[in-house]
Amino acid sequence: MTDAVTLHGYFRSGASYRVRIALNLKGIAYADAFHHLRKGEQNAPEYRAINPQGLLPALEIDGAVLTQSLAICEYLDELHPEPALLPAEPIARAKVRAFAQVIACDTHPVQNLKVLANLRALGLDEGQVNGWAARVIEDGLDACDKLIEGQSGTYCFGDSVTLADLFLVPQLVNARRFGVDLQRWPRLIEIERACLALDAFARAAPENQPDAE
Amino acid sequence: MTDAVTLHGYFRSGASYRVRIALNLKGIAYADAFHHLRKGEQNAPEYRAINPQGLLPALEIDGAVLTQSLAICEYLDELHPEPALLPAEPIARAKVRAFAQVIACDTHPVQNLKVLANLRALGLDEGQVNGWAARVIEDGLDACDKLIEGQSGTYCFGDSVTLADLFLVPQLVNARRFGVDLQRWPRLIEIERACLALDAFARAAPENQPDAE
Repeated sequence: MTDAVTLHGYFRSGASYRVRIALNLKGIAYADAFHHLRKGEQNAPEYRAINPQGLLPALEIDGAVLTQSLAICEYLDELHPEPALLPAEPIARAKVRAFAQVIACDTHPVQNLKVLANLRALGLDEGQVNGWAARVIEDGLDACDKLIEGQSGTYCFGDSVTLADLFLVPQLVNARRFGVDLQRWPRLIEIERACLALDAFARAAPENQPDAE
Repeated sequence: MTDAVTLHGYFRSGASYRVRIALNLKGIAYADAFHHLRKGEQNAPEYRAINPQGLLPALEIDGAVLTQSLAICEYLDELHPEPALLPAEPIARAKVRAFAQVIACDTHPVQNLKVLANLRALGLDEGQVNGWAARVIEDGLDACDKLIEGQSGTYCFGDSVTLADLFLVPQLVNARRFGVDLQRWPRLIEIERACLALDAFARAAPENQPDAE
């Protein structure tokens, strides 16, 4: 049973964006609870009581509070199997998950707001901080691009949307924010275009959120 | 069918350690291929041909090369369901995955060898670099500790080993390496002790690998 679903997020949070796409794809209606990351609202005691880690997103669903966007997406996929976000075959599942984890583990957390703030606190200037973020993202997208070499179809892995696409599209938003030249990965841009043509992705985009600035 | 399983790893790689534990728990025999991280062997063209990301581990299994330790562990759990590394109930699965992802996403990749080398390249001194690693690990372990508040049993989530334990134990090795005072999390130390009493964990420990220095 899915009722009273609340997503704790922020329009510009890439990890929240992933979960918005998943909820839309699964046709799950949800209420928004916004926490302004740049104002530090994720550290307010009220939100820390919901997610002690003070990170976005958190999803209140089925009487529980779930954290970590990848775990949330896997939960939604297990409870609402259609449309499936993972292929059926185990090796294929592992490859889709690995792609998502290149972004979820090795890319986004190394260039998020908190890390960049820590770099500034150590005395690095804006050029160095932006350069850091750009290089991390370039490494991540290079890896993603290689992981789908030889794949065909509309999306990262064939003609069905998978977790890989849910993680790729928000990361490309981040890439642009830090001035990364996306022309290096024509295939990724092509996939992004196909994804954004879907209502579930378009509605989840940062600029279409009620808290967008 | 599982034959000719090869783990590309390094004794001190925390992510390789997770996969070693999983393989041992599942009773899967494997051959080691060692790549010395501090000598940069993960960047050799021969290894980049196996894992273009140049990160450890990679697992050759069932005719495929799998990357990303979390995806690998989930694959092993799907193909060899006993002993299960995730609970059966979806909310419980999501909570175990979230715990593992606090380490896999928010902690380890922000304090790994590559990140610390990049900090040094930006002119930070050893004190600052070690302080960075220690703070990232403390934040991660604080979050882990809170995520299992109210849980009882021998391991992170009850009396069965889960993915959470596979990710916790290697992270504690890293914590010690950077001088983090683990007394702050008595529950985590207690869980570690219970895990290391299991042959599958003990055999996977860094100091028990053939390439240990």
